[in-house]
Amino acid sequence: MNDTHTVPEKYITHRVTGEKGRAAKIAFPETEAAIADYLKQAAAQKQSVITVGASTGLTGATFPQTGEWLLSLEHYRNILALDEETLTLHVQSGVTLAEIQDYLEPTPYFYAPDPGSKQATIGGTAATNAGGMRAVKYGVTRENIRSMVVFLADGSKLAVGSLNNKDSSGYDLKDLFIGSEGTLGVITELGLKLRPKPAAKVSVVIGFEQLDDLAPVVYQILGSSLQPAALEFFDREAIRYAERFLAEDFLEIEGECFLLLTLDGSDEESVAQQLTQLSDASAKMKKQSFQPLREEQAQRIWRLRGAIGAGIEHVTQQEPLDVVVPINQITATIKRLRVVCLQSNLRAVFFGHAGDGNIHICLLREGLPQEEWEERLAVVLHQIYQEVAKRGGLPSAEHGIGLLKKPYFKEAIDPVKLQVMRQLKQALDPQNRLNPGKIFDITDK
Amino acid sequence: MNDTHTVPEKYITHRVTGEKGRAAKIAFPETEAAIADYLKQAAAQKQSVITVGASTGLTGATFPQTGEWLLSLEHYRNILALDEETLTLHVQSGVTLAEIQDYLEPTPYFYAPDPGSKQATIGGTAATNAGGMRAVKYGVTRENIRSMVVFLADGSKLAVGSLNNKDSSGYDLKDLFIGSEGTLGVITELGLKLRPKPAAKVSVVIGFEQLDDLAPVVYQILGSSLQPAALEFFDREAIRYAERFLAEDFLEIEGECFLLLTLDGSDEESVAQQLTQLSDASAKMKKQSFQPLREEQAQRIWRLRGAIGAGIEHVTQQEPLDVVVPINQITATIKRLRVVCLQSNLRAVFFGHAGDGNIHICLLREGLPQEEWEERLAVVLHQIYQEVAKRGGLPSAEHGIGLLKKPYFKEAIDPVKLQVMRQLKQALDPQNRLNPGKIFDITDK
Repeated sequence: MNDTHTVPEKYITHRVTGEKGRAAKIAFPETEAAIADYLKQAAAQKQSVITVGASTGLTGATFPQTGEWLLSLEHYRNILALDEETLTLHVQSGVTLAEIQDYLEPTPYFYAPDPGSKQATIGGTAATNAGGMRAVKYGVTRENIRSMVVFLADGSKLAVGSLNNKDSSGYDLKDLFIGSEGTLGVITELGLKLRPKPAAKVSVVIGFEQLDDLAPVVYQILGSSLQPAALEFFDREAIRYAERFLAEDFLEIEGECFLLLTLDGSDEESVAQQLTQLSDASAKMKKQSFQPLREEQAQRIWRLRGAIGAGIEHVTQQEPLDVVVPINQITATIKRLRVVCLQSNLRAVFFGHAGDGNIHICLLREGLPQEEWEERLAVVLHQIYQEVAKRGGLPSAEHGIGLLKKPYFKEAIDPVKLQVMRQLKQALDPQNRLNPGKIFDITDK
Repeated sequence: MNDTHTVPEKYITHRVTGEKGRAAKIAFPETEAAIADYLKQAAAQKQSVITVGASTGLTGATFPQTGEWLLSLEHYRNILALDEETLTLHVQSGVTLAEIQDYLEPTPYFYAPDPGSKQATIGGTAATNAGGMRAVKYGVTRENIRSMVVFLADGSKLAVGSLNNKDSSGYDLKDLFIGSEGTLGVITELGLKLRPKPAAKVSVVIGFEQLDDLAPVVYQILGSSLQPAALEFFDREAIRYAERFLAEDFLEIEGECFLLLTLDGSDEESVAQQLTQLSDASAKMKKQSFQPLREEQAQRIWRLRGAIGAGIEHVTQQEPLDVVVPINQITATIKRLRVVCLQSNLRAVFFGHAGDGNIHICLLREGLPQEEWEERLAVVLHQIYQEVAKRGGLPSAEHGIGLLKKPYFKEAIDPVKLQVMRQLKQALDPQNRLNPGKIFDITDK
């Protein structure tokens, strides 16, 4: 039997809007048997179940709207085994990214995905297919999970993926569950792909007068043999939020918008070579500054880059977007979206993962009264997602659709694709009991 | 309307067993409208449809058993566009790998997957999630397809994947269709991921007295910061088939079994560095020889490696297997499978992709009468697939399951996983009309 508890406030509060929801109960199982048992009870009583991790999600994907049963995996959090022969770390899904980083610190290996919140559970990052800073070289969460254990709606246990490096043996079920936001199954265990830590790295900041000068440089880098481990962009305004929040200074450097990139490699010499290659290429760039960073500088600048979102959240309520466009559309999209925001009278801060076409837009509430904020937001979100779709982009690169982006996802998606998603959901969860009403509705509402 | 034809012999002949099947008709559509039309006709008349490419598959996946309608995409073969901004090559699915290689030859880009048969259509390699020599660094077909157009059983058109580098926007349908061997939909168009060609590379042969000495070297290389673009193994016996077939000599070099690997990089210097790193590491290896190859030597040795399968097929009927095990199981598996083959009185040649744990076993018929061949084969296959499953391996790394491996796949697979596969098949193809009876049966037979 599971311990069920009255539901603490945190689990029924919408992380972004502050709205209050309703959950019938919550369990914190510590064994597979307890997980299966809870799911079977829910099935028997025709109750819906929402799987919960660290509640760091930004889309309301675990927000209970209708008295669902919550299944928290926060106590299902053992690091099970480090397999150095296949370079796999086996963990239960309630382990956090920070715990994984700490565990791997003294080893020669690292787990590549690096989403913003280190307090997120690994299970949550699998459910949303989280991205982060290093995706440009090492891929998103999807590419770094070898295997998973998943519990289905009826409580049965399924192993997907494997430790094999190639697989042409039946349907790829693993990738169907990754990114499905708890609507198809409960991810309880993961085999994570590890990589040898790069022996050397260097970070560089390149400053530009304007966005139009930055884009060609991004294309040039991505089209070259350089493989930056991170390739971020931000402007002065964005970094100022982080400076104030952390009380640390950015660089004394010319430029209005910036690329921050890291080159890594197997030894100092190969990194030095890459830096020379980048510096040679940059001779032809329309740039204002080019500054390789000393180690302590690099740490500070990356700290600042990582704190932009928190810095904004510290001073105002905000709506954080994570749209993505094909890499060749990034400048045109940002320029257009800036105009859209201006016309809607909403202040917005832009930054993101230039190497992935992944643009973060923080829409700022600042002093706006609730009603006006909601009205302006509705107008501007509709326009932003339309502009993104028009350019072949997607509403979410790494946060997921959840609840907040559901209406915009429905507008953007090909109706045939939505129909196929519904058919798959119905095949695996015929009673629509796993996280119902998230990503899409099973019938047209 | 489609041109339908009486069905040429080639399409009803099993490529591996020589068996004759039966197909009602075949069409070679050249437009999307014709593809949709053919599928709609088949739906209206409740007929099953098998999608056919270049018929180079090794598992009987396109073999018509019961008078199905064949849908050949061999005439749907335009290269549509090279998009240098997103590094994507858009092609119709009937284009062959050879044609893609030729097209990209004068460009600075390459398409990484390199399966054995260059006459395979790109659509066929997507349907089987084909692997090949360069998977150890660049991934298999799955990792190199950005987007696809798929036609469903009812003739409706679906776009999956996109040119975006990140995607947390709904279920991952693209990866469900890749590797589904034509049982879920008809892949008609693909957006292929291109990469800048490495500016420099070098190949090295390392000779060992015995398999036990080779394995630790593979682990050492994979656990280091070296990232070989290929890491193959074979023994003297295997390479002799290729030598006789091509009338070319291998090297004058000590050793009974060999690693053949390629190091590539952005310039000569970085490749030279990698070679030094490998050579330093090799000082501690229990090896008999270590030979970096001059360019013309490398070409010859890779030609020989690529011709092992053809060299065997040239002298005897064979059953080609493509099992895969976790990388740390490779030596133990090969040693055990050698014993299994010996005990069954079937000669077998072993070689494969050491970096992927992907073992090719060619079981040789040689002079055996049909009945004896089939009997011994049935016994040995059963044992081989059992041994592989016991070690966490899979029946197919890159050829697919098709018809030939179906009974062994059924034995190896978790019944819950098989049930989920059936549910998905039923969701997308409720009348079981797309390549029915391949990979698995929709009901227990």
